[in-house]
Amino acid sequence: MSFEVIFFPCEKSIVVEEGANLLLTALEAGVHINASCGGEGVCGKCRVIIEEGEVEGGRSEKLSEEEFEKGYRQACLCRVKSDLHVRIPAESTLEASSLNLQIAPRRKARIQEMNLDELKERGLFFPPVEKKYLKIPPPSLEDNVSDVTRVIRELKFNHNEHRLDVDLSVIRKVPRVLREGDFKVTVTLARPVRDENKTRIINVQANDRTSRNYALAFDVGTTTIYGQLIDLLDGNVLAQYGEYNAQLSHGEDVISRIAYAEKPGGLAKMHELVVGTINTIIERLMLRAKIDLEDISSITLAGNTTMTHLLLAIDPSNIRRAPYVPVSTLYPPIRAVDLGLAVGEYVTALVYPVISSYVGGDIVSGVMGSGLYRAEELTLFIDIGTNGEIVVGNKDWMACAACSAGPAFEGGGIQHGMRATKGAIEDFSLDPITLEPMNITIGNVRPKGICGSGLIIIVATLFEAGVIDQRGKFNPDLKSERIRKKDDQYEFVLSRAEETQIGRDLVITEADIDNLIRAKGAMYAGYMTLLEEVGLEITDIQRIMLAGGFGSYIDLERAITIGLLPEIDPEKIIFVGNGSLMGAKMSSLTNRIRKDVSDVVKKMTNFELSETKSFMDHYVASLFLPHTDINLFPRLKKRLEARNETYQHAISI
Amino acid sequence: MSFEVIFFPCEKSIVVEEGANLLLTALEAGVHINASCGGEGVCGKCRVIIEEGEVEGGRSEKLSEEEFEKGYRQACLCRVKSDLHVRIPAESTLEASSLNLQIAPRRKARIQEMNLDELKERGLFFPPVEKKYLKIPPPSLEDNVSDVTRVIRELKFNHNEHRLDVDLSVIRKVPRVLREGDFKVTVTLARPVRDENKTRIINVQANDRTSRNYALAFDVGTTTIYGQLIDLLDGNVLAQYGEYNAQLSHGEDVISRIAYAEKPGGLAKMHELVVGTINTIIERLMLRAKIDLEDISSITLAGNTTMTHLLLAIDPSNIRRAPYVPVSTLYPPIRAVDLGLAVGEYVTALVYPVISSYVGGDIVSGVMGSGLYRAEELTLFIDIGTNGEIVVGNKDWMACAACSAGPAFEGGGIQHGMRATKGAIEDFSLDPITLEPMNITIGNVRPKGICGSGLIIIVATLFEAGVIDQRGKFNPDLKSERIRKKDDQYEFVLSRAEETQIGRDLVITEADIDNLIRAKGAMYAGYMTLLEEVGLEITDIQRIMLAGGFGSYIDLERAITIGLLPEIDPEKIIFVGNGSLMGAKMSSLTNRIRKDVSDVVKKMTNFELSETKSFMDHYVASLFLPHTDINLFPRLKKRLEARNETYQHAISI
Repeated sequence: MSFEVIFFPCEKSIVVEEGANLLLTALEAGVHINASCGGEGVCGKCRVIIEEGEVEGGRSEKLSEEEFEKGYRQACLCRVKSDLHVRIPAESTLEASSLNLQIAPRRKARIQEMNLDELKERGLFFPPVEKKYLKIPPPSLEDNVSDVTRVIRELKFNHNEHRLDVDLSVIRKVPRVLREGDFKVTVTLARPVRDENKTRIINVQANDRTSRNYALAFDVGTTTIYGQLIDLLDGNVLAQYGEYNAQLSHGEDVISRIAYAEKPGGLAKMHELVVGTINTIIERLMLRAKIDLEDISSITLAGNTTMTHLLLAIDPSNIRRAPYVPVSTLYPPIRAVDLGLAVGEYVTALVYPVISSYVGGDIVSGVMGSGLYRAEELTLFIDIGTNGEIVVGNKDWMACAACSAGPAFEGGGIQHGMRATKGAIEDFSLDPITLEPMNITIGNVRPKGICGSGLIIIVATLFEAGVIDQRGKFNPDLKSERIRKKDDQYEFVLSRAEETQIGRDLVITEADIDNLIRAKGAMYAGYMTLLEEVGLEITDIQRIMLAGGFGSYIDLERAITIGLLPEIDPEKIIFVGNGSLMGAKMSSLTNRIRKDVSDVVKKMTNFELSETKSFMDHYVASLFLPHTDINLFPRLKKRLEARNETYQHAISI
Repeated sequence: MSFEVIFFPCEKSIVVEEGANLLLTALEAGVHINASCGGEGVCGKCRVIIEEGEVEGGRSEKLSEEEFEKGYRQACLCRVKSDLHVRIPAESTLEASSLNLQIAPRRKARIQEMNLDELKERGLFFPPVEKKYLKIPPPSLEDNVSDVTRVIRELKFNHNEHRLDVDLSVIRKVPRVLREGDFKVTVTLARPVRDENKTRIINVQANDRTSRNYALAFDVGTTTIYGQLIDLLDGNVLAQYGEYNAQLSHGEDVISRIAYAEKPGGLAKMHELVVGTINTIIERLMLRAKIDLEDISSITLAGNTTMTHLLLAIDPSNIRRAPYVPVSTLYPPIRAVDLGLAVGEYVTALVYPVISSYVGGDIVSGVMGSGLYRAEELTLFIDIGTNGEIVVGNKDWMACAACSAGPAFEGGGIQHGMRATKGAIEDFSLDPITLEPMNITIGNVRPKGICGSGLIIIVATLFEAGVIDQRGKFNPDLKSERIRKKDDQYEFVLSRAEETQIGRDLVITEADIDNLIRAKGAMYAGYMTLLEEVGLEITDIQRIMLAGGFGSYIDLERAITIGLLPEIDPEKIIFVGNGSLMGAKMSSLTNRIRKDVSDVVKKMTNFELSETKSFMDHYVASLFLPHTDINLFPRLKKRLEARNETYQHAISI
């Protein structure tokens, strides 16, 4: 028997068989519901309200008795039993549009952008793909060499091009194109990374098209995929576009993606989804920049190790199991159409190498794009996230490590945590007397939750105000309606039900704070252990580079306050933005990067931290605000001492 | 309205719409009918007998009034008008089985086979594809490099293999295979042609499979495709198989194939047909040798320029139009599966380069396989056929040319001409007094026609017996029932209707003889012009190499008698057999050939003969038996003088 299911507020409907899983039904209808755990019923994010009709199941400890009676269900645990009206609550929806909004930078790290002029000055601006316009004499009985020989001869004698290989796709096109263009044609040459190799003729087009030569660069993220369209004549970015990775519907983190890929047909599906998202972005970029697909000559992609495996349809299953072995860290150049990428068959996809299972191509790309690999200063390069990555070194040596910080920075494990999209509290201040908060949200709308960068500010503020102590526990002596005890734990009410989009009080709990402390503790223990492994102290670090989406939003001083970043002059902290995308772009612009990257990969020493005793010691010591050893944070120590006097005073009033 | 058409003797039936073309109907039913002209109605080979039912059309000047009344029609000109019984006459069928019969060599040129021992002695036996067995330590937390790195490290440290590239297909397989084989695996390495390039890891298999490593070599002929399965451990041929090129249904010569390829969808169809035949052969070879597809590591193919274009789906149309420009003479290594070849995705197809539109990869392969390219002696290398090819030179220099001899050598343009299959007269002698013939046929069955090599023997015999003169005209003074005049031209009855398979007198006509004279004249003019171009005389030639299927059957002395071959000591004529297949095999066995072949291609000077005045002069002088200048054939001259005395005597009795 089949039933009609209508989803609200989007009003999309679909007909399914009795017993269909409601989360999969929504997926099939094109309705997005968050599902952090990949459908295993443990995250509780996929709650929906059954407004009409009957379902079977859908109850777990994630739903209160009250919620259950109001019709809340976990979509992933429900089966369809009749025609249904299903409402998706506001907190379960994603707003992709906000990814593409320009969010004004705040008091953050200085931004380091790729220095194209420097590249040009140093003579390093030689794109791997170049076009040449040829006027070729037509064949005659006296001179009837083959079409391809004719093209090569012209390149050799009039353009000083030697040692050329020709792709079969060019051979197939060349007779038609030569005659269409009356023997005036544009050839696309792909330069070798190493001089001893040959230049390949990868495309041939009628007439003069030398002014149109473009590259694509991609950062393939677990959550978001960003693409850039680059003009290879001047290195300018003509368009940029970001889109959620379509794999999100099957889990939010790499572990759930790997789990999905291990199911029958799962790897192919994951591959298809990520390629689909990339193709959507390619289409948008071309529309936005108004260019022909035919003029795209190269594509470079960087992603973490799991994303890279899934993109290339390589089995990622050993990444998540000890001893955490990726299949490959280096990838050959691949014909892009073989991956399903919607570009010309002559386009080669260049995929950034990775270092290990948890230090991926996004980090390698960041190291290249940020220029760390040729820096003089001893630099700590950090990508903060669920999977945090750390690189330390300079042009002479490099070491790296990964640490699993957990999902707190992305709002995971936080009762009202959410991604940094519209409605997320991203800034916060507190009246130290009344404890009344000021919430600033992304998009200036009623709050829906707390994003990672907001969480850091809230916790740092509560800590500096003495509302919570070094262990993250609420001060029970404070009397305020904002602070209350529920289910045996304290929480702070940031926003009352009626002020929110979610119709419930928006709170931060001791458990939330504890999760953040664990996350920042893992990062900090990571730096400390890695530095120890290479025989350095935190004070030896001359510069910090923050990479990745999260780094761009954090308030440096507050991040230091909670002990997420070591105490260093904020002037020495540089934000490199999407280092992964930057590195992919640079590879599109100069073969020098493609040559250097293999040296960088060889040079980089990978340390497995999580399994070492040293890491555990550092981790335990880091589970305080900012750290067990407050002397590691001398500036903060002074402020806290000053505060204690003030508050002592305030509280005593 | 639809009708059922039944073909006899095979009794295949098919239902088609009214008005369907009968030749296409046969094709669709899987019934083969010769169609030399690709369906243009000019060859007249596709004659069928309508035994029941009604057709529209089907009559042309190729059918006599008598034949038409007996129900003969040209299938390509017929449209179906009712249910039909259609008989395919014996002369219109091909017998593929005869290709694979071992036909005993006769008094022919010495056979030169590839000398494998010499290769080994000279240290040149290093197959381009090699297998290595690796026992790899499994990963641990202390040593968790990637699977691919683990394989490469083992090759580097324990097998002295450096500078390795890895294919994506290997990366995709390696995690499963490593664990299946408990980290004991066999890798297949593809060696670079040039030392400066890298070795590629193209396959990985569980456990030790080093004893199973095979190559495929193919000669892709216009008529027939031959394949060999080669054991790469010792160079032995494990199986060989020949099959008619499935493109034959769309025309017998390269020109009609090109014409077909120019129709919409025609190129794809031609490509599909040739690949289909190759795949059939691969399947047969594997069955015959009982090996796994997975152990085939390489495939090498050689064919004439048109066949090579069609195999690679490259538009061949300019090959047949002045100024006769092929698209390309060199072809990159191609992933075999991209061509549709039924081998593993790791197999690279190596396709022999060509010289020009009419000197193809089969000739280049023959030059390599025969060892001509490293010969000391000045050698004339000849492939006799519809498209004759000539190479002259030695290890220091080479020149080549093609000449269009027309189809006489393959039985085309000869009233009862046929291919060298069962029932073809292949040998012949004559009682000089009674003029009664002795016909020897292939397979010792009743004659069905005359094959090219038989034709040479018949004409040489008639000439030496004085039955025909130097111009190929019958001696009108001879009184014999065998000699008669019909439709204004003389003919000689080789076999009476009742003695044949075809139910008609089997004759050779003056027009047939004239066609043979033109064909041999074109070949001879070819040698003479090419030699002239390079400043040599025929007497400078130290050795003749005959290549190709036709060369293997011809009687050397008789070929000299008619002036097809220059008069040279028959001991100095060597038959190299299927030089194309031999070269393909050698490329499978040693990279040295693959390296040398590009030098050969560069070294080879191509001459376009047919357009030169010099060629026309030589051609006109060659339109005699054996030649206008009998002094070019001193031995024959003596024999003819002796004969004249004898016959004078005989005739006068």
